Amino acid sequence: MIIMMNIPTDMQIDRVMAKLAQRGMEAYQLKSGGKTIIAVTGHAPAENAELFERMPGVEKVIVISTPFKLASREFRREDTQVTVKDTIFGAKEIPVIAGPCAVESYEQLRQTATAVKQAGARMLRGGAYKPRTSPYSFQGLEQEGLEILHAVGRETGLPVITEVTDTRTVELVANYADMLQIGARNMQNFALLKEVAQVKKPVLLKRGVSATVEEWLMAAEYIIAGGNEAVVLCERGIRSFETYTRNTLDLSVVPLIKHLSHLPIIVDPSHGTGKWRLVGPMAKAAVAAGARWTTD
Amino acid sequence: MIIMMNIPTDMQIDRVMAKLAQRGMEAYQLKSGGKTIIAVTGHAPAENAELFERMPGVEKVIVISTPFKLASREFRREDTQVTVKDTIFGAKEIPVIAGPCAVESYEQLRQTATAVKQAGARMLRGGAYKPRTSPYSFQGLEQEGLEILHAVGRETGLPVITEVTDTRTVELVANYADMLQIGARNMQNFALLKEVAQVKKPVLLKRGVSATVEEWLMAAEYIIAGGNEAVVLCERGIRSFETYTRNTLDLSVVPLIKHLSHLPIIVDPSHGTGKWRLVGPMAKAAVAAGARWTTD
Amino acid sequence: MIIMMNIPTDMQIDRVMAKLAQRGMEAYQLKSGGKTIIAVTGHAPAENAELFERMPGVEKVIVISTPFKLASREFRREDTQVTVKDTIFGAKEIPVIAGPCAVESYEQLRQTATAVKQAGARMLRGGAYKPRTSPYSFQGLEQEGLEILHAVGRETGLPVITEVTDTRTVELVANYADMLQIGARNMQNFALLKEVAQVKKPVLLKRGVSATVEEWLMAAEYIIAGGNEAVVLCERGIRSFETYTRNTLDLSVVPLIKHLSHLPIIVDPSHGTGKWRLVGPMAKAAVAAGARWTTD
Amino acid sequence: MIIMMNIPTDMQIDRVMAKLAQRGMEAYQLKSGGKTIIAVTGHAPAENAELFERMPGVEKVIVISTPFKLASREFRREDTQVTVKDTIFGAKEIPVIAGPCAVESYEQLRQTATAVKQAGARMLRGGAYKPRTSPYSFQGLEQEGLEILHAVGRETGLPVITEVTDTRTVELVANYADMLQIGARNMQNFALLKEVAQVKKPVLLKRGVSATVEEWLMAAEYIIAGGNEAVVLCERGIRSFETYTRNTLDLSVVPLIKHLSHLPIIVDPSHGTGKWRLVGPMAKAAVAAGARWTTD
Repeated sequence: MIIMMNIPTDMQIDRVMAKLAQRGMEAYQLKSGGKTIIAVTGHAPAENAELFERMPGVEKVIVISTPFKLASREFRREDTQVTVKDTIFGAKEIPVIAGPCAVESYEQLRQTATAVKQAGARMLRGGAYKPRTSPYSFQGLEQEGLEILHAVGRETGLPVITEVTDTRTVELVANYADMLQIGARNMQNFALLKEVAQVKKPVLLKRGVSATVEEWLMAAEYIIAGGNEAVVLCERGIRSFETYTRNTLDLSVVPLIKHLSHLPIIVDPSHGTGKWRLVGPMAKAAVAAGARWTTD
Repeated sequence: MIIMMNIPTDMQIDRVMAKLAQRGMEAYQLKSGGKTIIAVTGHAPAENAELFERMPGVEKVIVISTPFKLASREFRREDTQVTVKDTIFGAKEIPVIAGPCAVESYEQLRQTATAVKQAGARMLRGGAYKPRTSPYSFQGLEQEGLEILHAVGRETGLPVITEVTDTRTVELVANYADMLQIGARNMQNFALLKEVAQVKKPVLLKRGVSATVEEWLMAAEYIIAGGNEAVVLCERGIRSFETYTRNTLDLSVVPLIKHLSHLPIIVDPSHGTGKWRLVGPMAKAAVAAGARWTTD
Repeated sequence: MIIMMNIPTDMQIDRVMAKLAQRGMEAYQLKSGGKTIIAVTGHAPAENAELFERMPGVEKVIVISTPFKLASREFRREDTQVTVKDTIFGAKEIPVIAGPCAVESYEQLRQTATAVKQAGARMLRGGAYKPRTSPYSFQGLEQEGLEILHAVGRETGLPVITEVTDTRTVELVANYADMLQIGARNMQNFALLKEVAQVKKPVLLKRGVSATVEEWLMAAEYIIAGGNEAVVLCERGIRSFETYTRNTLDLSVVPLIKHLSHLPIIVDPSHGTGKWRLVGPMAKAAVAAGARWTTD
Repeated sequence: MIIMMNIPTDMQIDRVMAKLAQRGMEAYQLKSGGKTIIAVTGHAPAENAELFERMPGVEKVIVISTPFKLASREFRREDTQVTVKDTIFGAKEIPVIAGPCAVESYEQLRQTATAVKQAGARMLRGGAYKPRTSPYSFQGLEQEGLEILHAVGRETGLPVITEVTDTRTVELVANYADMLQIGARNMQNFALLKEVAQVKKPVLLKRGVSATVEEWLMAAEYIIAGGNEAVVLCERGIRSFETYTRNTLDLSVVPLIKHLSHLPIIVDPSHGTGKWRLVGPMAKAAVAAGARWTTD
């Protein structure tokens, strides 16, 4: 943590130093022009930033310690591989997940599953609990949808993934699904993150629509710290000013995450662009962005 | 819904018209230059947009029906007033809510409550369940925090508000609090919205950090449609590129919400700016932005 | 143009229709629920939107005509190729442009140029007029920089590109450079766009840091409409809330531009990410995003 | 400047320290966990950040020196007042500027000027050179527009302001206008900033649509450093994801600018919202945001 003070009085500096000492934090002072910079070493949780930012004479507090630990590349140098049946995330293969937005009926899912399997997909997706912007939209078949998904997965031999949206149904969903999905809107639903951490099923953690890379990795940290190390990250587009595309697919995070973290990352070009025309090119681009980083 | 087709073939137009007819939607065609515009009247849920956008020849689909109904100004012309004990939201008075971020102890809360009451606050806030970016941060005193909050509220005569973060604890929180807060990160936690809709306590619905006005009103719609009409909206800053402030307080939504909806709206200048220096001026600006719209 | 009126009176509708007639615009009315939708066919410039949006009873005006014409794919179906000496943009090859941020000296540029040529670059870049955020930063060698750039280009056989920043120096820069660059900050410097339109040198038009795709293509339209068809677009990252990267490289625009326009598009992964680690992966991703669209 | 190194080797640290020494920059090392933090005191221009960020072992470089000097509150403690005829910016009064978007004819401007003067406006605005998104839109009456503006200003006794868009016409515009406006799109047209710095007319500097507060103050610094201290800042909305309003009016910058700088700041609620309904409330909010900061 760096505390920047602008033309502070000696008493203001003393008060900051005293508060740091009181909290057991070691600090060094540097003076430069009218500014005094206090560099704090060791553990400095983000909450402290606000505490010190409020003190007289303090201009700005910059938190510099990496807040994620278990999810960081420093913690584990080699790439983590997450295995769902015989599909591996974080290895050389490119495991394509496909399927309908929502499970609507056995026939619909069966037909789709057969088609996507033939096209090369390695995992089947389909929503049973749908987080819809409108309460008047179809909210999913719920348990019936889970049963259909499970059945079609077994019939086609594809592992299945579906979204969890409520702490109360995590266990139920985990009984039917091979992998649990945390959707973008729930990326910081911490109660839900803690709950999936206690289930022995791999988790696909989608990036929130306006989540920074740091917030995203902190959400992964919740799951790992809670006991579940099988986390796969999924970039699915962020919200920007551009309206031609539904979201702005932020492919730079592919090499960035691989630098900062050992967790595998995949990309969702459908939600990420919202335009069928762009899905093909952006899927290829996603592979290219990560290709050189894949562990051989 | 408006479907824009770019230099379509007759067969492409016929397919779109047939699909509309099949779904019972009435439509009119307009031709202009190489474009064919199909205007669809009546109920056209947003899901349809994606369906038609995928069809050959379709360039873009624009959804124009207002998706919120119960929350809209058309549905109710007069301002809704939400009453929490003797504090009224949506009337002439300006009810200030104040209190610490988290309930830490009885002494801390008692002292703060006394101070904010003397300063004019009409409601006491304090977190018992804290949605923290980091799993290593203090997560709140939970039920003990609720008990302290309840006790201090009764002693000072201030109604109390606290955040709910999990469907499983909504009932518990409602036993202790006079008003329930849905935080920005849970604005689209639809399971939670449905749960607070069934509780007979007023709800303060904070705007998500990247939520559009429409998404925000749709979240309110979830609560109202579920049976709870006592919803107060709270602008608390949106995420932008600017880093000097923690968030960008979007005060334009005060008159905008008052135009689009009958629900009361308040502003959180603390989270909205993240700088103590800016809280005073922005609180005044918030009042000024809404002043002329208040029902006399 | 679509004019949406919310529960309008007959007189309000009449006034809108009269104003449209007065401006020679043909319009159709559609009623649906409480709304009246007026669809306007033919030419409807964007200025009109504001005009009608102000009228009583009007809720919203949506402009639906594609505002760019000469830059659009409808205007020219085949890909435009821009040739700079023996380097072709918009063909199968991938022409890499490389070089230092600023021309600092003959030795510096000569050394860099030799190195990038050996590494496969097909064009040399180097700034002589530098648009700097701070007036205290080095502003470029100006004409001396142009002379060095020109000389080194001739010696190495690489065509050269440099930025123009002022209408008064366009002609001078065009005497030394093989291609002119319009930087992100000047993408909507319309006086400059008009000036480069009159020069017989190809133009590289960088996307503004918060420019929509439409605004970007409109900037290209200025140059083409002014008489210069040799325009190459360059995506260089947009401004978002993410701070790990300097900008958010928006690769989706590669296939999107190829769909909307006939102009060639290239990508700048250095400015687009601001991190040397990400340049390699994102360069590959850029190629992959455009690969399937290249004209064979 | 703070250089953060992540688990660096001794040789990597030595190379960074050597490069700093070579550039005459004093630096201190702090070690904490696996990280080495190098704090650099004294003058450290932003260009250096990129230089060091590229070095092996360096994770991130944070620039902490305030880059604006002449525009900063440290440089001048008291509020600057800018006087245009008998209208003062930065004093107690609230000088309202009003007028049409573009000067279209003598009659149009004369009529508008009379109306806005009666309504209390203190300055007349009107565009003669219009920066239009489309080359097919009306580009302004140019010199004829300036003449009309000048004449109507003299007749009504209102000082006049108009936009400059080209370095070549700054002198011409300055002959007719009492105040020069730099529009949002040209906020970082540095050639233009340098040119208006040499004219003895006050300048209204609009914030770029995605400009940070720092970039905005740096643009002001260009004008002051060039010799013209009469700079008034104008917030006019930033670009965000919200589409209900044309821009997001960022009123927090009013108290923020008053804290960071001695320059006067005004607000443009028309462009800032793009909705006539919101102009009144946001104008009041703007005054309230700045009220307590005005020098008495």
